[in-house]
Amino acid sequence: MSYGLLKGKRGIISGALDSNSIAWKVAQRAKEEGAIITLTNAPLAMRMGEINKLAEECEAKIIPADATSVEDLEKLYEGSMDALGGKIDFVLHSIGMSTNIRKNRPYGDLNYEWFMKSLDVSALSFHKMLQVADKMDAIADNGSVVALSYIAAQRSFPDYTDMAQAKAMLESIARSYGYHYGKKNGTRVNTVSQSPTKTTAGTGISGFNAFYEYANEMSALGNATADECADYVITLFSDLTKKVTMQNLFHDGGFSAVGISEEIVARMG
Amino acid sequence: MSYGLLKGKRGIISGALDSNSIAWKVAQRAKEEGAIITLTNAPLAMRMGEINKLAEECEAKIIPADATSVEDLEKLYEGSMDALGGKIDFVLHSIGMSTNIRKNRPYGDLNYEWFMKSLDVSALSFHKMLQVADKMDAIADNGSVVALSYIAAQRSFPDYTDMAQAKAMLESIARSYGYHYGKKNGTRVNTVSQSPTKTTAGTGISGFNAFYEYANEMSALGNATADECADYVITLFSDLTKKVTMQNLFHDGGFSAVGISEEIVARMG
Amino acid sequence: MSYGLLKGKRGIISGALDSNSIAWKVAQRAKEEGAIITLTNAPLAMRMGEINKLAEECEAKIIPADATSVEDLEKLYEGSMDALGGKIDFVLHSIGMSTNIRKNRPYGDLNYEWFMKSLDVSALSFHKMLQVADKMDAIADNGSVVALSYIAAQRSFPDYTDMAQAKAMLESIARSYGYHYGKKNGTRVNTVSQSPTKTTAGTGISGFNAFYEYANEMSALGNATADECADYVITLFSDLTKKVTMQNLFHDGGFSAVGISEEIVARMG
Amino acid sequence: MSYGLLKGKRGIISGALDSNSIAWKVAQRAKEEGAIITLTNAPLAMRMGEINKLAEECEAKIIPADATSVEDLEKLYEGSMDALGGKIDFVLHSIGMSTNIRKNRPYGDLNYEWFMKSLDVSALSFHKMLQVADKMDAIADNGSVVALSYIAAQRSFPDYTDMAQAKAMLESIARSYGYHYGKKNGTRVNTVSQSPTKTTAGTGISGFNAFYEYANEMSALGNATADECADYVITLFSDLTKKVTMQNLFHDGGFSAVGISEEIVARMG
Repeated sequence: MSYGLLKGKRGIISGALDSNSIAWKVAQRAKEEGAIITLTNAPLAMRMGEINKLAEECEAKIIPADATSVEDLEKLYEGSMDALGGKIDFVLHSIGMSTNIRKNRPYGDLNYEWFMKSLDVSALSFHKMLQVADKMDAIADNGSVVALSYIAAQRSFPDYTDMAQAKAMLESIARSYGYHYGKKNGTRVNTVSQSPTKTTAGTGISGFNAFYEYANEMSALGNATADECADYVITLFSDLTKKVTMQNLFHDGGFSAVGISEEIVARMG
Repeated sequence: MSYGLLKGKRGIISGALDSNSIAWKVAQRAKEEGAIITLTNAPLAMRMGEINKLAEECEAKIIPADATSVEDLEKLYEGSMDALGGKIDFVLHSIGMSTNIRKNRPYGDLNYEWFMKSLDVSALSFHKMLQVADKMDAIADNGSVVALSYIAAQRSFPDYTDMAQAKAMLESIARSYGYHYGKKNGTRVNTVSQSPTKTTAGTGISGFNAFYEYANEMSALGNATADECADYVITLFSDLTKKVTMQNLFHDGGFSAVGISEEIVARMG
Repeated sequence: MSYGLLKGKRGIISGALDSNSIAWKVAQRAKEEGAIITLTNAPLAMRMGEINKLAEECEAKIIPADATSVEDLEKLYEGSMDALGGKIDFVLHSIGMSTNIRKNRPYGDLNYEWFMKSLDVSALSFHKMLQVADKMDAIADNGSVVALSYIAAQRSFPDYTDMAQAKAMLESIARSYGYHYGKKNGTRVNTVSQSPTKTTAGTGISGFNAFYEYANEMSALGNATADECADYVITLFSDLTKKVTMQNLFHDGGFSAVGISEEIVARMG
Repeated sequence: MSYGLLKGKRGIISGALDSNSIAWKVAQRAKEEGAIITLTNAPLAMRMGEINKLAEECEAKIIPADATSVEDLEKLYEGSMDALGGKIDFVLHSIGMSTNIRKNRPYGDLNYEWFMKSLDVSALSFHKMLQVADKMDAIADNGSVVALSYIAAQRSFPDYTDMAQAKAMLESIARSYGYHYGKKNGTRVNTVSQSPTKTTAGTGISGFNAFYEYANEMSALGNATADECADYVITLFSDLTKKVTMQNLFHDGGFSAVGISEEIVARMG
């Protein structure tokens, strides 16, 4: 179903790895809703991914960029404004990586070089995407920026280790830059805190199946899918949400507000 | 601008008093987006209001109902399903009244009969709207229910007196019933916490101008208007937000996440 | 262990039903810490309870009062100031009752007369305790008032029904009156959100054992006991917490901040 | 006033720079309450500070340590256990530094090397203090760890720049490690979110006076002082708060829960 919600808008979508990625779905939906977009991903991620297929489908230019590199991000905005013919109306940040998680390091035995890398890639990159655009004046008035987060920013999940801190920092950047950008040119900045999602990245976390199932049984509506997340992100890019900013928005079937569900009560028996 | 977001949907809008009302704007936007609706208001409010004009514009039947009366609410759902030809897809609760505020009673001298009345009209009515519909099975699968709230539910505003408690209770009902309805038939229940708004009701609160202006200077994007609120509520009624439930969603230009703004710093000089 | 934390302080403790009650423990600990106190409870609750034993142990006068009655509360403060020889330094509100819960009414079939009664007894009584004292100027400068709450105020627990709304309202009263009393005479008002506790009241809730065990497995430190809660409340009555006000303080072994625990992961297997 | 709350306990206090420091007051109060302690600070900070005076007053050994250095922290715990004769019962983390703030860099022009340094010094150091202790088994059963935070973790303050992210990350570490340590040996980990305080560090932030005064007028009880903060931290180190963990505790005179105060309303006139 398409409504034309993003007609005439220009956007940048980061983090589409393969067809399970939330970013992939957001790109497809943005195109369907009338936007023109560019795609970006880390050069390494791109070699593994199938992003060319998506680019073709969305008639989108791919601009590789390491989101921790200010220089790369400058090229991303230049290239995007060039390809799309004007300032950018919306940006999706969907970037996260933790070597500590990948290597199954427990929270009491984290490697600090990797920890700093997790922060740089998964959180500071968001500030860089915003500051680079800010200096280049690359985001159009009343623009909309969204980053994907997870409730580990608020609550402890044993296997999420340093990504919990990265997400807390990411959400904090949305508040700080949301203030700054709002006063500057009406641009809003929010994070969407999504249910555990069966993406290639998500399923790599140890114990993923257990907390996917747990979240599914706890949530009033069950876990939100990547497709549903894309739909929601589209509303945040549209002109219908112009005064929502500096928020962390739970898109989680109600998980964040459930104390216990009947399904979990039954399991306690 | 219309996108067809509510094409084929049936809705009930309560609380449209006059053209300043948020509910009034929601009704207009719902119609524009393709919904068919009924309008409801308390018999007394209707006599003062200009709701007939709105009804004509929206081709909507008016069904008077005292939202504290289970019997009236039964008639509202019956009448609405009858008029609209099926179960209800969305409901707006926009009902609030405090005699303690109207009579300028300070928080240390509240009248308890009025206090209970504030709770009954402004909060319990929301439970009644949900429970009556639940028993009648009047809300369609994957429906969406929204009630309007205010940040006084989280923070103290000296002149908001017993409405602070009513709004806290209202938001709690959204969480409790959101769980119940989600498990039942996929219906979501949320509250929207809106900026101070120059409605007929809003401006009746003593000191309104001061905290309107304060909120405006604090918020990254300034205060959200009634029109903007209506746009936002439309997204919550649409199929693009199917997994958002049990949330209190700030539609406030960022007010809730600002610690201090430069404008307020300047005033402290 | 006694530290003399409340030496010379005068207090009122409500809600001590039997030796399982948190209020009972608070009374004992307050006495141990050097306070002189009065005890109060609803006339009906007193007939069932063993409060006389506690009164003897604490050398405390019992002043029966229906906390929904302004007149009774006036007598409570008068009688307490009289018995204790001065204004009151601390007050514990530990009052809650829901006929809907007692009769096992599901959330979709609540009786509204009982609902209003739950609000009146469990939440509005807190405002009354504060407003009556305020008008009588019965609370000493830098006093401390605590009410007991539960996390159902923030999250949905299917069996907690209308008490969820009562607790949300109770916590909201603490914020509103905390502002008022702070500006007036430095008195602070807080709520303590306690783990599920094996009190006579607690264990009456259907499904109590399941969510007691669930909370115990989720919490980093296990559930907090009534004794531990009493210790914590003592710190809030002491002069060491003079600037803590308008807060809802979780005393729950960390439950509120845990997303999932390893014990629950194991149950999902 | 002394109560003997920390009799027999061993503690480590970091961050005492001079007699305005909160950590300085905590050290004094810990000593008064019966604890034996060691003091630590960065070698550089120590050269500027007057920590020797404090050490003498508290009969405390000083163990210099760069809190970003795992090796230094190992020596800190070894030296402390040696000097104090056993495992550590409580730890205060009071460490923060931002070159971006010191150099007045606006949020849209942050230096990223400094940003990473802010995170490392102000937040990651907390994880290091916990992980090093964890590996050395240096914290006694039912220990208590507190770090000092600020509400910029939740809300935007234009001049607080990258420290907002550092504090968000710090509070997230408290939740993650609080879970881990709770399950391990009953140790609790919390952050105290303190009013703006006239410490040597605090007053270095541009615009400090404006938001100090603003916070003072907004807070129901006015801003909390460093002395009051020390009192509060003592309660968290004591055995009376054994089930409080993974929390961010506002010690702010109510600031965090005030929407607007009458003083600010008056300024809007």
